[in-house]
Amino acid sequence: MKTLLTNALIIPMKTEGESLRGDIGIDGPHISFIGEKPDTFVPDTTIDASTMLAMPALVNAHTHLAMELMRNYKDTAPNLHAWLSEIFPIEDKLTAKDVLTSSRLGVIELLQSGITLFNDMYLFPESTAIAVNEAGIRATLGLTLFGDLASSKQRIREREKLTDAAIAASKGRIRLDIAPHAIYTCSKETYQYGHAWAHDNARQMHTHLSETKKEVDDCLKEHGKTPLEYLESIGALQDLPTVLAHCVYLTESEIQMLKGMHISVAHNPSSNCKLASGIAPVATFFRNGINVAIGCDGSSSNNNQNLFEEMHLSSLLSTVLTGDIAGLTPFQTLKMGTINGAKALGMDKKIGTLEVGKEADIILIDLNKAHLTPLNDPFSALVYAAQASDVDTVFCQGNMVMHKRKVLGLDQELVQKEVESCWQDIQGR
Amino acid sequence: MKTLLTNALIIPMKTEGESLRGDIGIDGPHISFIGEKPDTFVPDTTIDASTMLAMPALVNAHTHLAMELMRNYKDTAPNLHAWLSEIFPIEDKLTAKDVLTSSRLGVIELLQSGITLFNDMYLFPESTAIAVNEAGIRATLGLTLFGDLASSKQRIREREKLTDAAIAASKGRIRLDIAPHAIYTCSKETYQYGHAWAHDNARQMHTHLSETKKEVDDCLKEHGKTPLEYLESIGALQDLPTVLAHCVYLTESEIQMLKGMHISVAHNPSSNCKLASGIAPVATFFRNGINVAIGCDGSSSNNNQNLFEEMHLSSLLSTVLTGDIAGLTPFQTLKMGTINGAKALGMDKKIGTLEVGKEADIILIDLNKAHLTPLNDPFSALVYAAQASDVDTVFCQGNMVMHKRKVLGLDQELVQKEVESCWQDIQGR
Repeated sequence: MKTLLTNALIIPMKTEGESLRGDIGIDGPHISFIGEKPDTFVPDTTIDASTMLAMPALVNAHTHLAMELMRNYKDTAPNLHAWLSEIFPIEDKLTAKDVLTSSRLGVIELLQSGITLFNDMYLFPESTAIAVNEAGIRATLGLTLFGDLASSKQRIREREKLTDAAIAASKGRIRLDIAPHAIYTCSKETYQYGHAWAHDNARQMHTHLSETKKEVDDCLKEHGKTPLEYLESIGALQDLPTVLAHCVYLTESEIQMLKGMHISVAHNPSSNCKLASGIAPVATFFRNGINVAIGCDGSSSNNNQNLFEEMHLSSLLSTVLTGDIAGLTPFQTLKMGTINGAKALGMDKKIGTLEVGKEADIILIDLNKAHLTPLNDPFSALVYAAQASDVDTVFCQGNMVMHKRKVLGLDQELVQKEVESCWQDIQGR
Repeated sequence: MKTLLTNALIIPMKTEGESLRGDIGIDGPHISFIGEKPDTFVPDTTIDASTMLAMPALVNAHTHLAMELMRNYKDTAPNLHAWLSEIFPIEDKLTAKDVLTSSRLGVIELLQSGITLFNDMYLFPESTAIAVNEAGIRATLGLTLFGDLASSKQRIREREKLTDAAIAASKGRIRLDIAPHAIYTCSKETYQYGHAWAHDNARQMHTHLSETKKEVDDCLKEHGKTPLEYLESIGALQDLPTVLAHCVYLTESEIQMLKGMHISVAHNPSSNCKLASGIAPVATFFRNGINVAIGCDGSSSNNNQNLFEEMHLSSLLSTVLTGDIAGLTPFQTLKMGTINGAKALGMDKKIGTLEVGKEADIILIDLNKAHLTPLNDPFSALVYAAQASDVDTVFCQGNMVMHKRKVLGLDQELVQKEVESCWQDIQGR
């Protein structure tokens, strides 16, 4: 299958400020050319992209996708810990079927925000894997751990098998990672066992870290160490690619520690503001060469999966807090949402930029909008003026998975009805 | 003309938490009932609003609408003053025709964000007035003053007459106010003359105030007073309803001063963050009973007219800075975007809430979206999950002015083309 996108404004996201007008050829899963169509490329399908901007699809580096169900639910709790006490009793009632229903809504919402890869941490990853395959997108699904070693061992044993079939069917689009929830919900042995499992199976780790001041204070009190120092001291981060979500309270010396490690930060500005957790020092991370990606966090603390909002907010917060827009430029902000996310998840050789030979995860943004006229600087336009609803068409691994905002692999109307009825049912349990 | 909206989820915005499902009747310019349709109401047009949320249209309490032209243009300047030095040379070239072209795009964008009333400050208000009438919406147009008394007198003399015809045709939807730009661009006499003109003609004043630390520091140095104290000391605020845009740096004692005055604050969070100006203490204003509305500011420093983004950002900033979501709840945030804006502009008897007898400025928000499913708390949904693109239909003064996102009074495609060509032309001058 060969697809031709003609006459697009193309932002490859390789070099600051680079844009060109031209065609893009997709051959099977790969980008076969960018710029001028060679005569040898004979497309099966041609899409007129002359009013579109083509850029790499976005990467959501931290979420809990199936929390869609609890969107706008008791969400004005005063802080993270008060809010979790509302959420945990609901989660205790969830079944694998609930998570499948909710994940189907989640993948629709991700695509409608231009996201083709997400880093998830939730219950029943085998359910989310099914929805990911139905939508034809990518995920690193965290096999989520809570509590002590015995329960973690059991969880890994059970869940790993259950996801096998979906992973095999995904053509490399799904990977099962390990996701111990947080230092205040997992024992030392759980982290160590999760680390060993990920290390032995060539997977990554995904965990919450330094999200609130309370977490840091409690950790200092209990262990005499900050959360990062604690995880490092128990060997949970050794030689293992890891995504640390939040990192609101990393100190200068912790930032120096990160430099030598295979660690990326997933910044979640909406959730951190909404739960009064704080604001991560993103410009400082950048200045120190730390790889920073962006996450939406769960829809119950955000309350959507809109990475355009997260990029917008990341830039505004960084500029007003540092007084310096140069510390996080629009181009750097867009990198956080694309190639840095791919890098955080070990996928930067495959996706995250538009380059010949890479897999074709591409979004087309409809520029024929009042709020994108005139366009002037396309990087500023994407960060400050665009909305998620401007994403018109999405390709993942060379396949068109959304066109004119219609998600092709799922029936959106049916999914929404099922979510409504599932949520009613859960509340009545 | 009688219009019936059936079976909507209605948020009147009168009482915290109040919502109902029912019908709304519009008779001429007015809301004739809310809830159950009386038998005597025989509609000319009926709209099925069963998948819609009906709420008061939004109010943009501070903007420079015709700055649409400079959207995403040289917008990564390090601060307000550096950025203004890029913008002023462009503004020197603008003609009345340019401002008409740009204002047409502006009113389209306002409607597509659910806004039916905006408080403007720009050159050639007579041009903007034409676009406002074409769209059928409302504006308080600031007759903008710069410099010394002689030039201000001349400007008032010229512009007042030029707007007469449009105002007469507007059925009360347009008012010409006075808008001295700022204390660092206007003389004392300009403020005093503007104040006298507004006072004698029963108009309001609209000015920038305490937007940056530099403005405050310079004012203290020059006058030994803060900007608010200075304006008060020269009599520029006496007995005159006034909108002060920004108010990032108001001190506790200035906030106490505001209590006894006819003054509203227009909060502009995107612009204040993007230009590294700072963050206004909105929760403190609320706690002291100050009327706070929201503005988008010009599209060259925002970079759009999206009041949903401004509400979202207002809430997130307030919560993370104060650590307390109760200081600015989702309902209060929505008040800032509706009734508080109407009150700031002296229109709260006419619009800003849905009440029988008020004029019908109503927006219908399409809830049939993945990111609004499930809805749960509608106030949280509107502030945290909704996008401007969810606004489906807009009524202003009882007339449908946008339906299914199509603005009815203007040809969007033509307007966009004219803006592109106008902007090319200006850059070549």
